[in-house]
Amino acid sequence: MAVPTKLESPLRPLQWRGGTDGHLELLDQTRLPTEVVRLACRDVETLWEAIRSLRVRGAPAIGCAAAYGAVLAFQSASRGSAAEWMEAVERGCKRLAESRPTAVNLFWALDRMRRRAESLRGAAARDAGEALMAEAHAIRDEDAAMCRAIGRHGAELIGDGVGVLTHCNAGALATSEYGTALALIYAAHEQGRRFKVFADETRPLLQGARLTAWELQQAGIDVTLICDNMAAQVMREGRIQLVVVGADRIAANGDAANKIGTYGVAVIAHAHKVPMYVAAPRTTFDLSTPNGAAIPIEQRGADEISHGFGRVTGPPGVACYNPAFDVTPAELLAGIVTERGIIRPVNRETVSKMLSEKG
Amino acid sequence: MAVPTKLESPLRPLQWRGGTDGHLELLDQTRLPTEVVRLACRDVETLWEAIRSLRVRGAPAIGCAAAYGAVLAFQSASRGSAAEWMEAVERGCKRLAESRPTAVNLFWALDRMRRRAESLRGAAARDAGEALMAEAHAIRDEDAAMCRAIGRHGAELIGDGVGVLTHCNAGALATSEYGTALALIYAAHEQGRRFKVFADETRPLLQGARLTAWELQQAGIDVTLICDNMAAQVMREGRIQLVVVGADRIAANGDAANKIGTYGVAVIAHAHKVPMYVAAPRTTFDLSTPNGAAIPIEQRGADEISHGFGRVTGPPGVACYNPAFDVTPAELLAGIVTERGIIRPVNRETVSKMLSEKG
Repeated sequence: MAVPTKLESPLRPLQWRGGTDGHLELLDQTRLPTEVVRLACRDVETLWEAIRSLRVRGAPAIGCAAAYGAVLAFQSASRGSAAEWMEAVERGCKRLAESRPTAVNLFWALDRMRRRAESLRGAAARDAGEALMAEAHAIRDEDAAMCRAIGRHGAELIGDGVGVLTHCNAGALATSEYGTALALIYAAHEQGRRFKVFADETRPLLQGARLTAWELQQAGIDVTLICDNMAAQVMREGRIQLVVVGADRIAANGDAANKIGTYGVAVIAHAHKVPMYVAAPRTTFDLSTPNGAAIPIEQRGADEISHGFGRVTGPPGVACYNPAFDVTPAELLAGIVTERGIIRPVNRETVSKMLSEKG
Repeated sequence: MAVPTKLESPLRPLQWRGGTDGHLELLDQTRLPTEVVRLACRDVETLWEAIRSLRVRGAPAIGCAAAYGAVLAFQSASRGSAAEWMEAVERGCKRLAESRPTAVNLFWALDRMRRRAESLRGAAARDAGEALMAEAHAIRDEDAAMCRAIGRHGAELIGDGVGVLTHCNAGALATSEYGTALALIYAAHEQGRRFKVFADETRPLLQGARLTAWELQQAGIDVTLICDNMAAQVMREGRIQLVVVGADRIAANGDAANKIGTYGVAVIAHAHKVPMYVAAPRTTFDLSTPNGAAIPIEQRGADEISHGFGRVTGPPGVACYNPAFDVTPAELLAGIVTERGIIRPVNRETVSKMLSEKG
């Protein structure tokens, strides 16, 4: 179908339909921006494929989707014994944990669902199903609240008349709604500020072109699409006063893993004295990872580069190198915007302080 | 047709077929790497369109093609009076000068052909045709000789076991043969050195993926294709010891205009202490341009970004910013490899000294 001018507001990439016997509906992000297709996930394998194939992507959205995945796993054995549904949830969570290697939210959400299931040992299947459903909804609602809070804390960074560069998609489509990096933009927009957003297209999968430009356009925000290699020139021309991106995992010292190309943007922003912020909820931090060097980087297939967009873009058989993420060292970040406030400057101590705050 | 494993060697993107009444044959570079299609240019308009549409591209190749274009212009009035063919050459050169705005070789080659035509005032049409033909062949042959000399001077920069990053295509396909930046690579390869080349795909038109990776693969050189935004990560991983690129125009102070993204690569290379060299013949220098700020930057259409590869890659109607070139300041360059030797360090004095050398 053609893209309607306006979709539902706020834009939500995932929604549970029905009760404990319902299903998870995903906006298939591989079909944007030309088609709005909704995908019904009624079992763990369909969801595993959807996460693996980036139909749902963005660390927080993957976390929410995986939480609902635990409910789908439960459903598959809800008529069995307690041991059986417990085993099904365990197996489903294990399977979903193998869908993507880098996003810490995935593991976090699955652990939380697994722990909730553990706590239900001995409960009736019906009660357990409702409790797991409620837990998944809570994860989603907390994510939405976190995104709103990130927007509130970070909106101050976007003054009237500035240019903001973002890379990849850390927007509504990457979360339950509203986004992390784009939460600042939505919040500043809601506060009536006027500014210009530049979106890196973000090769190889073009999340910036297909998703960020699309969702900002939907929201009526002034957005200009550029190729990744134009960011330096756009900065040199003085068009950018702020860079804001999301993160897939942040180490204890503030080093942040995000979509490939983020590190290059950080180096370029630093050279042009443009402050760069990461926006991410506290669940994106992984204190068991001391620094960026300890973050595993997913390597993806050559075809994403050599056969982009259903066309052959490179010569047959050419070798490609395709790291899906890179790590931006903390010293290149002006700050990290969390749902509790801004970590600034970014180092082991300030990260630790922000994460230990209660609430 | 499918791409044959080996094409003629050396690879030539343009060749004149026949005598003064012959035509220019171009390898249509918009069809690579999936199809090898040769385009016959029998008039100025066909060539104008071919230059405009990047069927022939790369500053030196455009210069050679334009020189032959003056012969095509002459042909159109070769049966007329001396005033008529003189006027036809003048008009043809003027038209071809409007095909692309940035490449100084284009203007240089057309000026040279125009001056040659001027010098033939009073000559018989047949003699004039042969003289113009000879002049165009001389421009091509001098270009080929310059490329070989650049390779000889620059090959020393590529030691055994190094990784070399290049951006866009400054190879055989961008010149009459052998290339400028890639001349170093071909020369080092011919000298038996073993090394690894990383080719930026070079959005939006993918000259790196379609052309550089293809021609290096044809030559049996170890080449790995990456997306533009991966260059920083590849450098951080220690895989790159040298960056070498071409140039479309170099100002008197050594500031170099080249394909968009080159400046970003320079900033990133500088941050990683990787030396970056430009390779270009002395005709690429424009001493009437004092510095990079005075180089006009061609802006191209939004469709190249939002409708890449025959597919919609951005949302309908999205604004795009598409500068085709950027300028790398001289201070980010370790040197400029010319056919006379390496300018190192790069500044107004060293540029002036190299250009004033006779021979």
